[in-house]
Formats: sequence, structure tokens, C-alpha cells
Amino acid sequence: MDIYERSLEKHYEWAGKLETRLRAPIESLDDLALCYTPGVSRACTEIAADKTKVYELTRRHNTVAVVTDGTAVLGLGDIGPEAAMPVMEGKCALFKAFADIDATPVCLDTKDPDRIVDTVVAIAKSYGGINLEDISAPRCFEIERRLKERCDIPVFHDDQHGTAIVAGAALINALRVVGKKISDVRVVVNGAGSAGIAITKFFLGLGVGDVVCVDRCGILVGGEEYSNPAHTEIASLTNKTKLRGTLADAMRGADVFLGVSAPRIVSQEMIKSMANSPIVFPLANPVPEITRAEAIEAGAAVVGTGASNQPNQINNVLIFPGMFRGALDSRASDINGDMCRAAAAALAELATDKLCADHILPSPLDERVVGAVSRAVAAAAKKSGVARK
Amino acid sequence: MDIYERSLEKHYEWAGKLETRLRAPIESLDDLALCYTPGVSRACTEIAADKTKVYELTRRHNTVAVVTDGTAVLGLGDIGPEAAMPVMEGKCALFKAFADIDATPVCLDTKDPDRIVDTVVAIAKSYGGINLEDISAPRCFEIERRLKERCDIPVFHDDQHGTAIVAGAALINALRVVGKKISDVRVVVNGAGSAGIAITKFFLGLGVGDVVCVDRCGILVGGEEYSNPAHTEIASLTNKTKLRGTLADAMRGADVFLGVSAPRIVSQEMIKSMANSPIVFPLANPVPEITRAEAIEAGAAVVGTGASNQPNQINNVLIFPGMFRGALDSRASDINGDMCRAAAAALAELATDKLCADHILPSPLDERVVGAVSRAVAAAAKKSGVARK
Repeated sequence: MDIYERSLEKHYEWAGKLETRLRAPIESLDDLALCYTPGVSRACTEIAADKTKVYELTRRHNTVAVVTDGTAVLGLGDIGPEAAMPVMEGKCALFKAFADIDATPVCLDTKDPDRIVDTVVAIAKSYGGINLEDISAPRCFEIERRLKERCDIPVFHDDQHGTAIVAGAALINALRVVGKKISDVRVVVNGAGSAGIAITKFFLGLGVGDVVCVDRCGILVGGEEYSNPAHTEIASLTNKTKLRGTLADAMRGADVFLGVSAPRIVSQEMIKSMANSPIVFPLANPVPEITRAEAIEAGAAVVGTGASNQPNQINNVLIFPGMFRGALDSRASDINGDMCRAAAAALAELATDKLCADHILPSPLDERVVGAVSRAVAAAAKKSGVARK
Repeated sequence: MDIYERSLEKHYEWAGKLETRLRAPIESLDDLALCYTPGVSRACTEIAADKTKVYELTRRHNTVAVVTDGTAVLGLGDIGPEAAMPVMEGKCALFKAFADIDATPVCLDTKDPDRIVDTVVAIAKSYGGINLEDISAPRCFEIERRLKERCDIPVFHDDQHGTAIVAGAALINALRVVGKKISDVRVVVNGAGSAGIAITKFFLGLGVGDVVCVDRCGILVGGEEYSNPAHTEIASLTNKTKLRGTLADAMRGADVFLGVSAPRIVSQEMIKSMANSPIVFPLANPVPEITRAEAIEAGAAVVGTGASNQPNQINNVLIFPGMFRGALDSRASDINGDMCRAAAAALAELATDKLCADHILPSPLDERVVGAVSRAVAAAAKKSGVARK
């Protein structure tokens, strides 16, 4: 049986990947009176007098809602709230396994951005943070922006920023391996969906010399008006030399290729046309833009993919558990750019002990990761003024 | 330390009464690939092809959202979503302890019935059932009615129906003790809030001869127009002989008194004015309408209260765990009157082995309760056509 059929069989066996465990015993009438009525009313009045006490007297300090509308689930597209649930449960399971965070799946039965925002705002006081997941672009940008304005807890679209931060850490270390300065390099990002746009912005924030974004229609050029306003915006921030043309044109002379696009669209010729010591991150999943073996054969100096059975896996699980752990521990009101950059730097740092072309990132199972990332995130939250503890 | 201060201390110690436990192990890269990407996509496509599979492949079959807007929390009133959380967590803890149901607190940051309904509808596909809690009257009636119309999962306002069902079971057995027929008795319900109105309707459904509802302004009389439309409606269904006057007038000659009102408002003279063998359920909490000792001294034949240290505790925990267990087990699309009456009958039956004036209900810790109630509920769901399994 392949991984998919084995997973299906396991899902039938598990019949749910999460359950509730009690931290308060309920075995006697006294337990009932302490945990519930009448005793519980005292905890309520304590919080009514000082709302911040909710973080001490309830589990809110350790909770994250994993929210989706089911419109962009894995590579499956718009499959709706029911079919999205296995992914959200899985995400919550990773939150628990990696960061001891009690996350809960919320699959929304609406695709209307206004209703999504209103719904999340209405439930946000029940959680310590909101992880947006698998919401299609460009809706996800507006939804995240409006939620960040209206919620006083961290809101983080992992498909955008989690991916961007891990890719950023990979880039930092790949540049160390090939000995190039970040401000000197030109990166081609192929695929201008939510991940591609977030990666582009994050790379610019890290100080990358130039990024060229390529979409299905070709290179995005500043000054053009695209039907997707996010493309118009990102075009204005990138492509300093106003390159025009296809992906092949973009890659000629580039230092780094990063794909969040489609299977097998990068040829060995394109890799050969890049600058010396090309860095290649073909992240399309499960079939990448070009295989690791082909990229290396064509001269790639460092390759990172999404595959768990290859070196340099660019896997979101390296970031989101520690990101939320740090945000919750510092009771941050937001996850800001400083926190994201601190997370990338901390993650990159963890791989420097054995740094080489085949080891630019720690393993997803490296137990140091969540602690290092969360400490860096909490410190950045304090320094940037969003920590409340 | 009293129960309140001990409870507060425990709440600080627990720092949350619930946490997540994994049913799927995550210890290796293979576990990751089974529980999350890429394997999980197979469970998604299975559900996308047949949405009912969500009940087999995820935890939805065992989940309940405990939803409040924080407007009528215990006797504390409108204390808001943060301060309501300890009660909702406690309720979820009871769901787990008594019925192994994985419940999750959802404290809403809105009091607008339209937004409450829209929010709950938007999140309902993530759960197997909705338990509404501590929402003030008369808003709770409309909110529940509209949610029952729009959701295809059970929606149950426990403060109304849970209380009504337990009181109904207590009434059935109290009448057995005093040897009266339910169709012959007149019941006075004092307090026409959400619980009082639900109890009145439920008692009528059980076949009680007549109910007289009394509110702060006195006896409710059919044909009158009250500012609260729920009062106008309930008045039209009750008080066959058009009694007018005060609580004392209502109680004269009545067979049963049930209070969900205020402390110490029933005198021994009122009890003495009732029919022979009076049944008295003063449920105001923590201080009842009349104490058990006073009621017995004044001639009450059977007394039930909300207190856990007295016989005949009328405690919602006797019903809501088994009600949802039965509804989830039968995958019911609704909780209807048949299911509620079946639950009351099953609960009453459990106390008949030792039936006497001091034992009309089983103990909240009686382990037979959840099984007996859930089986009766599931059977009634099947018989009434709302079961989907």
C-alpha cells in the first residue's frame, strides 16, 4: 500500500486524530462543585473584574484555532469544510506534538470574506491565536489583513508566512554554503499565489537584492495593471531591471530559483542558464518543478524540496509550532515582521553546526527547533512592543 | 476556605481544565506523512466524494461546541465572553467525564442574535452538535429556533431543555411517590425566564393537567399582551382557569411548586396552602426559594433542590451528557421532543429501584445514567426519523 492508502486506513482506525483530556479531575461531587457550579463562578467574577485573568484561569493561553474555508486544501483546491477537516485535525495534531499547543479545527461553511472575517472575530476571544489555513488567494490576503486589524491576538496565515519563513532560513544558509551576499543575489519566484507572494515579500524584507516573480502569464513587471491586485502590487516591489518574458527568461543569470507552482516546468537547460552555484528550491508537491537529481546533474549547488525523504526539506512544521509557542508565551497581540525574521534567523542558526549543501535546515524531528524558534519569536515580540507578558 | 475560594485556587493551578490528546502518534517522519501531508489528502478526497465520511474519518462524530455569548452566566448575568470561559470549560469537562464527548468552548464576542446565528451556522460543520449555554432570555428562544432551522446537527439550549428534562423526571417520580396522576395535577412554575418557560412547555408535553406561570409581575394570564412575546405565548398555553394575582394566589391548592426564580420568596404559609402532599422544587441557586427543611416542616411531601448536598438534586448533568451521547451515536439531525421525553422517562426509571420521597432521581455520579439516557435518546431519534445511522 502506498502512503495515501495507508493514511486512509489509519484515518478509519483513528476516527479522529484529536480528543479532549481533562486537566481537572471529576470523580466526586466535590470535584464537580470545584470544576463547575457553584465554585466556578468565582473564576468568572475574577475574570469579569480583570479580563487578562482569562489567560491564567482558563486554557486560552495555550490555544490556537486552525481556521479554513476549505477553498485551497493542499493541492486539492476548493473541497469544502467537511473534506478539509482531516488536514485541519492533522495540523492541530502537529501543534500538540511539536509545541504542546491545544489547537482546535474550525472549518467554515462560507467562502464570503466578509462572513469569514465576522465569524473569526466573533469567536476570537475563545483562543490565544488564529492560524489561517488553506484559504485561496487573493481572498486570503484581505481576510488576514482585516483579521489582524480587528483581533487583539496573533493571526497568521501559515501557507503564506510559514512557508516564507522556512524558505527564508533555507535561503540564508544556502547563501552561506555558496558564499554569496544576500543583497547581491537575484531570486526568481515562480508561482504568484499566496505562498509565492508572501515568500517574495519576506525575501525582500530579509534584504535580497532583487526578486523576479513569474506567474502563468510570464514575468510580472512593475507599472503593469494585472487582474489580480496582489500581482500589481508585488510587481511594483520587484524586478528592478524590468525584465520581461517567460520563466526561462527570468532564470537566465539568476542566483536562486524558488518554485511554488506546478510539476516539471523547469528544465535542466534553465538551471544551466543561471548564475554560478545556482540555488534551487522546487517546492511543488508532491511532484516538484524539477527533481533534485536532475537539478544537481544540471549544476545546482544547493537543492531544497518539499519531500521528506530528501535532504533540505522545506517543511512548514519547522516554523508554525515554535511561532505560535513564542507568540503565546509572550502573550503577543500580533505576529509581526520582526518576529518572522527572528524565527527564520533562529531556524537557520540551528543548521550551522553541520552546514553543507545537503544540510541547510534541521530535520523536522529535531527537538531543538521549537525551543529555539519560540525563544527568538518571544524575544522579538518583546523588542517590537507587541508582547503583553 | 469555602468552595468558591477553593475553586479559584484550583483554577489557577489547572490553568485550563481541558487539553488536547493525540489519537494519532507523531514520532517519525512516516507518522507525519500518515497524519498530515502528503497522506492526509486521501482522507480529504474520500470525504469530498461522500460528505458523510467526515463522521468516520475525523472526530466530528464525537464533538460538541459549547456556545455562549456570556449574557446569562450562572446567576452572574452579562459578564462577557472572557468571564464566561470557566463555565464553558467546566461544561466541556463534564461532557468528557460523563459521556466521553470531545466538547470545545466557543465564547462569542457579540450579543446580536443575527451575528450569533450566522457565526454558529458558519462553524457548525466542524462539530457533531451545538450546546447553547447561558444565553439570556428572550434572545435564546429565537437564537435556538433559527439555529435548529439552519443547522443539520442537533442544537440544544441546555439551560432550557436540560433543566426541563431533569425536572420532568423528578416530577414523574415525585407523582409516583405521592400517588397522583400527571393529568390531574396543577403545577406552579415561578420565574418565566428561559428555564421556566422551557419547563412549562415540557411539563405540558408530558401531560401535566395545568401549569400556572408566575413572573415578577404576578400570574401570567392568556389573552394578555406582555412586553416579552414569550410570556404572551406561554400565557396562552397555560392557566386554564384564568387565575389572576400573586405567587401566593397561584400556589393556593396547587399540587406542585417549581421555582427558577429568586431566593427566599416562598413562605411556609404558601406551602401550607397547597393541595395535599405538596411537591416542592425550589431550584434557585445557591439560595433556594424556600429551604428544604422549611418546606418539609410546612408539610411538603417531596422536595428537590439544586443543592448537591441534599437528596433529589435536580442537576442538568443527569441529562446533557447522555442526551448528546445518544444524539451523536444515532447521528441525529435534531434533538426533538420525543428524544427529550424519552430521556426524562429513562432517567426517572433509574430511580425506581429505591423510589421514595428522598430518592426520586439517581445521583449525578451514578454510572448507569449516561448509558440509559443515551440509549433512550438514540432509540427515540430512530423512531422519530431524525437518526442518520
